[in-house]
Amino acid sequence: MKQMTKGQKTRDRIIAEAANVFNQRGFEGCSMSDLMAATGLEKGGIYRHFSSKEELAAEAFDYAWKLAFETRTHDLEQVPNSVEKLKRFIANFVERRTSVPGGCPVLNTAVEADDGNPLLRERVRNAWRAWRDTLVEIVAAGAKRKEIRPDVDAKEVATLIVSSLEGALMIARLERNKDALLAAQSHLCRYLEAEVRAHSHSH
Amino acid sequence: MKQMTKGQKTRDRIIAEAANVFNQRGFEGCSMSDLMAATGLEKGGIYRHFSSKEELAAEAFDYAWKLAFETRTHDLEQVPNSVEKLKRFIANFVERRTSVPGGCPVLNTAVEADDGNPLLRERVRNAWRAWRDTLVEIVAAGAKRKEIRPDVDAKEVATLIVSSLEGALMIARLERNKDALLAAQSHLCRYLEAEVRAHSHSH
Repeated sequence: MKQMTKGQKTRDRIIAEAANVFNQRGFEGCSMSDLMAATGLEKGGIYRHFSSKEELAAEAFDYAWKLAFETRTHDLEQVPNSVEKLKRFIANFVERRTSVPGGCPVLNTAVEADDGNPLLRERVRNAWRAWRDTLVEIVAAGAKRKEIRPDVDAKEVATLIVSSLEGALMIARLERNKDALLAAQSHLCRYLEAEVRAHSHSH
Repeated sequence: MKQMTKGQKTRDRIIAEAANVFNQRGFEGCSMSDLMAATGLEKGGIYRHFSSKEELAAEAFDYAWKLAFETRTHDLEQVPNSVEKLKRFIANFVERRTSVPGGCPVLNTAVEADDGNPLLRERVRNAWRAWRDTLVEIVAAGAKRKEIRPDVDAKEVATLIVSSLEGALMIARLERNKDALLAAQSHLCRYLEAEVRAHSHSH
């Protein structure tokens, strides 16, 4: 097993603690003194490990996203049917929270970086595409096993699921209740049954 | 007709020009010097009209939102049928842009203010609720005229439309193409036909 150096450990701890503040306040809303307070380090102690605030924010985004993605794909491999796998993914999004406060890192960072910071914009676009591709693979595997209609556009299914959930999360966080997320969940489940699942009578 | 004082005119011009920068860079991402550059005024010239950056940002949000709302409800009263009215609303969201760059003010401000600024958070929550209520009224009027199923939950229809469109906008701005918005539009239109429109055979 690879041994972690003390410097590597400190770097990882800075990333984890910075992720908590960046994901709540945003890249621009997070000052150097916020980062110093969160990590308990002086400015020099932070910048010994990162070349810029931007580099730290990009690493913090990747860290927050890794946790969010693991949470949303939790136990997915235990669900054999691909339509049920998509439903479990949706339920995970609605029910499970990671240890990083502030909502979805993709939503937060996409909205902040779409007109701005190019490094963060690239990281969040890569995260969204990897997320979409995970859903696309589930749909493609389901089509192969005839659980999913052969004429379904896998990329469109993935895009509809992610956009409905992210938009609903925006409203849920504004209203401070889950109504919008629960509405999106039941809507998406009806959609998966009506338009995505292959029914035996169609063979 | 009410005459506008010179001070009132300057105040309105500051709001309009601040809206352009706030909607692209966010409240935190927008510095005093950004505001001075956008308005061509010194700090004192801006703060003669507003008690704080927060007050200016709140007024700028209301201004940007008013334009966005007008754009999305454009020509709606010319569409007699309520299901078609909802479709026109969706098409306006997908096709029409306001003069304020940076995407939807509700999405931008909700994501930034959900953990933060209480004044902005209140403004954006009010905007979302007024927006939802406009859609709720269209659905309720349609149910009365038997164009829409009597058992449809108007608030849920409104929430699903807004969340699908806002989430799709997030992806469209990240990808810099309209695919996600067009997918949301055709999905919502199928949903309106299948689950919302009253069909004569159901009477």
